[in-house]
Amino acid sequence: MNGAESLVRTLVQGGVDVCFANPGTSEMHFVAALDRVEGMRCVLGLFEGVVTGAADGYFRMKGTPACTLLHLGPGLANGLANLHNARKANSGIVNIVGQHAVYHIGYNAPLTSDIEGLARPMSAWVRTSPDSKSVARDGAAAIAAAKGSPPQIATLILPADTAWNEADGIAAVPETSQRAGYSPQAVDTAAKILRGGGGETLLLLTGGALTEPGLALAAGIAGKTGCKVMGQTYNPRMARGRGRFSIERIPYVIEQALPVLKDFRTIILVEANDPVAFFAYPDKPSLLKPEDCEVHRMTASGEDSVAALEALAGAVGARPQDAKPQKPMEIAWPAGPLNHASIAQAIAMAIPENAIIVDESITTGRGFFPPTASAAPHDWLQNMGGSIGFSTPVATGAAIACPDRKVICMVGDGSAMYTLQSLWTQAREGLDVTTIVFSNRIYRILHGEFEGVGAGEPGRRAMDMLSLDRPALDWVALARGMGVPGRAVTTADDFNEALARAIAEKGPRQIEVQM
Amino acid sequence: MNGAESLVRTLVQGGVDVCFANPGTSEMHFVAALDRVEGMRCVLGLFEGVVTGAADGYFRMKGTPACTLLHLGPGLANGLANLHNARKANSGIVNIVGQHAVYHIGYNAPLTSDIEGLARPMSAWVRTSPDSKSVARDGAAAIAAAKGSPPQIATLILPADTAWNEADGIAAVPETSQRAGYSPQAVDTAAKILRGGGGETLLLLTGGALTEPGLALAAGIAGKTGCKVMGQTYNPRMARGRGRFSIERIPYVIEQALPVLKDFRTIILVEANDPVAFFAYPDKPSLLKPEDCEVHRMTASGEDSVAALEALAGAVGARPQDAKPQKPMEIAWPAGPLNHASIAQAIAMAIPENAIIVDESITTGRGFFPPTASAAPHDWLQNMGGSIGFSTPVATGAAIACPDRKVICMVGDGSAMYTLQSLWTQAREGLDVTTIVFSNRIYRILHGEFEGVGAGEPGRRAMDMLSLDRPALDWVALARGMGVPGRAVTTADDFNEALARAIAEKGPRQIEVQM
Repeated sequence: MNGAESLVRTLVQGGVDVCFANPGTSEMHFVAALDRVEGMRCVLGLFEGVVTGAADGYFRMKGTPACTLLHLGPGLANGLANLHNARKANSGIVNIVGQHAVYHIGYNAPLTSDIEGLARPMSAWVRTSPDSKSVARDGAAAIAAAKGSPPQIATLILPADTAWNEADGIAAVPETSQRAGYSPQAVDTAAKILRGGGGETLLLLTGGALTEPGLALAAGIAGKTGCKVMGQTYNPRMARGRGRFSIERIPYVIEQALPVLKDFRTIILVEANDPVAFFAYPDKPSLLKPEDCEVHRMTASGEDSVAALEALAGAVGARPQDAKPQKPMEIAWPAGPLNHASIAQAIAMAIPENAIIVDESITTGRGFFPPTASAAPHDWLQNMGGSIGFSTPVATGAAIACPDRKVICMVGDGSAMYTLQSLWTQAREGLDVTTIVFSNRIYRILHGEFEGVGAGEPGRRAMDMLSLDRPALDWVALARGMGVPGRAVTTADDFNEALARAIAEKGPRQIEVQM
Repeated sequence: MNGAESLVRTLVQGGVDVCFANPGTSEMHFVAALDRVEGMRCVLGLFEGVVTGAADGYFRMKGTPACTLLHLGPGLANGLANLHNARKANSGIVNIVGQHAVYHIGYNAPLTSDIEGLARPMSAWVRTSPDSKSVARDGAAAIAAAKGSPPQIATLILPADTAWNEADGIAAVPETSQRAGYSPQAVDTAAKILRGGGGETLLLLTGGALTEPGLALAAGIAGKTGCKVMGQTYNPRMARGRGRFSIERIPYVIEQALPVLKDFRTIILVEANDPVAFFAYPDKPSLLKPEDCEVHRMTASGEDSVAALEALAGAVGARPQDAKPQKPMEIAWPAGPLNHASIAQAIAMAIPENAIIVDESITTGRGFFPPTASAAPHDWLQNMGGSIGFSTPVATGAAIACPDRKVICMVGDGSAMYTLQSLWTQAREGLDVTTIVFSNRIYRILHGEFEGVGAGEPGRRAMDMLSLDRPALDWVALARGMGVPGRAVTTADDFNEALARAIAEKGPRQIEVQM
């Protein structure tokens, strides 16, 4: 077997059996190996941002890494923005990038570039395989790195001759470090803090703490100690909906975030980051907590936050029945005109049991949390890196990971344009994704940010850089162009009906909400 | 004035008066300055690959740099593939990337990444401006770097506080190195080679040598000395059409390139690179020249190749009338079915006087050169870096640079999908671009490359990674979605008619050639 086949067999044996790919000449032996190796599902994307974003979505739902297949430096470059988002979400990905044959690199052919240099800013692990005998072992090491605690982006660069020359066989994935744990001392300190003054303490959660059991434990701790529980502004995945502990998130808008945090004396971080402003603004702080607020980290990313919360509940004597009852917001199918509130109601009504929500509705969606807490139980995925064009690829990968769950992707028109090629992959693979495009014909968030950074009101030329209305994008035509049935709606009744139908049917659908 | 305004004023005064932009929060003060500063044309792209590719096309036609405006590391990352192509074309670009405020960078906000690390592989010059008093001077230095000999990618990173704090005023662009020249010794050596055996010598041209005067001089030298004149496989820009010296290029396919070069004893490089294979293939050489072939560089990129060719013509006694007459291929509107030959004839007939052709018709277009040598005079632009998704952005920038010239963009469907957002910018700006999409529903080139690298015939799973036919892309719908009128054709008659009409009308049009 050649190096490419040894790598594909090593991946499959190591549990990496989905490959999101946009290959070129230097990757053809990897592609050829697919015909000879059973067990690798290869999914084509027509742009590399789709490929890397799909690998992120796959990991978030499956908990184990997929691999990618990208074409040299520029192919990697096109995938970097969504690797950035994946890295900030602590998603594990085996990122495979083709390279010229080792002896060809020095000739400065057109596609030659510094691939390792491009990979490093978005990868925790980078290696160029030196020869065909090493490829399997390097692939196994990449899998181990991607599955680490915390999971990470492992970029394996594969020169073409290492793929076509003879290999020695497959390689086993080395044992990774012991199972994720937590620090009992950090839990003890958290317990002391809570016993000393729960009401002035914020338990700030993300990561594994936002699973259903993690949230239930936090609810008990809050009920017992009086502490407040919140989530980060953005979180990789959060269990939500009826019967689950519903928590608020730190608001994105800094003028709203500061008052929310102003009375806390201590913040206990459960995987979460010390809260910072998304951007800097003139004369406003970068850190959102009050100056005299202490911060205690109970768990870091890669640690077992559910076990730590269980220990904390034990230490403070919190039981499940200590959780305070929550009064869910009432929801109903809306009528009349479409606005942020009626859209939120319709979505809350439409979410089916066990749905996966991928949320990139940056401005339209700011009010979606309260009503959707009353929806059927679901998982909610958000953009951790702030690079827009995240949601449609992530929805694609989530649907590959969970073929029996409905995926609902909510995205603004500005964001959706970056990686609209996702729809084609959804059509080809028959993925059960309903994409809702909020078509307000403006980078709405920037209109707010313009004022936020003290630039006043945009004039005509500045406004041209924020608006998408000339010409208007026709999302139904764009979806049709890629084989996805689409529909535009302008009223709540039409939106209700379009949503209900898209949810009831199987396969990719798109709804353009014209605002 | 604040730092952003000092930068915009410095750019305009330095002759950089077009900005291709996809801004975000950290760039809002730059956008706001547009309202206060006259003379900067700002063109919005809905994806950064459009922005950077447009700056490449602008430079190729205008000869002076435009600037870009990109949003932090991920925005830069999305533009890197077309910066790679621009770098390989020696295009000058002032690449401006926003960054968090200096004091905010250390807090690891979602969008934080190593921007300088991302920029370096595709930039010759990288600088992060430290404060608002330095921004104008750093901008002037970036302009000087972009206008260097050779021109280059200069990436200026602009922390948000350097944009909003007070500046000292504008800065003048420092004197660049003296005007481009050439080495008289290198010309003498070339003359000696030609006098010693013109028939065994190849004059290999690119860059400035492929202008109309450069080609005319080469034609005289060839007529006088018997040397052969060829162009690189790909060239940034070539003057072509009736009345101009028509030259062949080194074939892309290695099996065709090797016999073309096998009898040369010497290759004289006029800006060109020593010819190397685009990719490595098992048991085939990387260098395309014969082993005993000598290579002499007469000019490098950034030197004045027309002056050098003039000196060479003088040294060998070549006059314009020494040029051998060329017999142009006859062209006529084709009839019957569409195939590579009839498509080439139709395009050759349709090209209007002074058109700009942007060519990314990777497989369909391999035979376009002979008939289009008989077309009306035009410029022909190609992809220098091999990263597909190059042509529709480059056509966009070329049309901004040359509003009075028709731009014809020829692109395969696979390539067009990477940066299809270009069409929206063409619609918004009313650009006179006719895009011809060759819709063969396959990465056709990879089908050939699969065999070329010795992987045999693709099986079902491998073929899935090469084909775009499930579902078929509807290019007319995609164009309509972005505000560009489109039409699909399947016969030569329809193609003739669609082409003639698109050329006759002003504004963006798209023709989908279904093959």
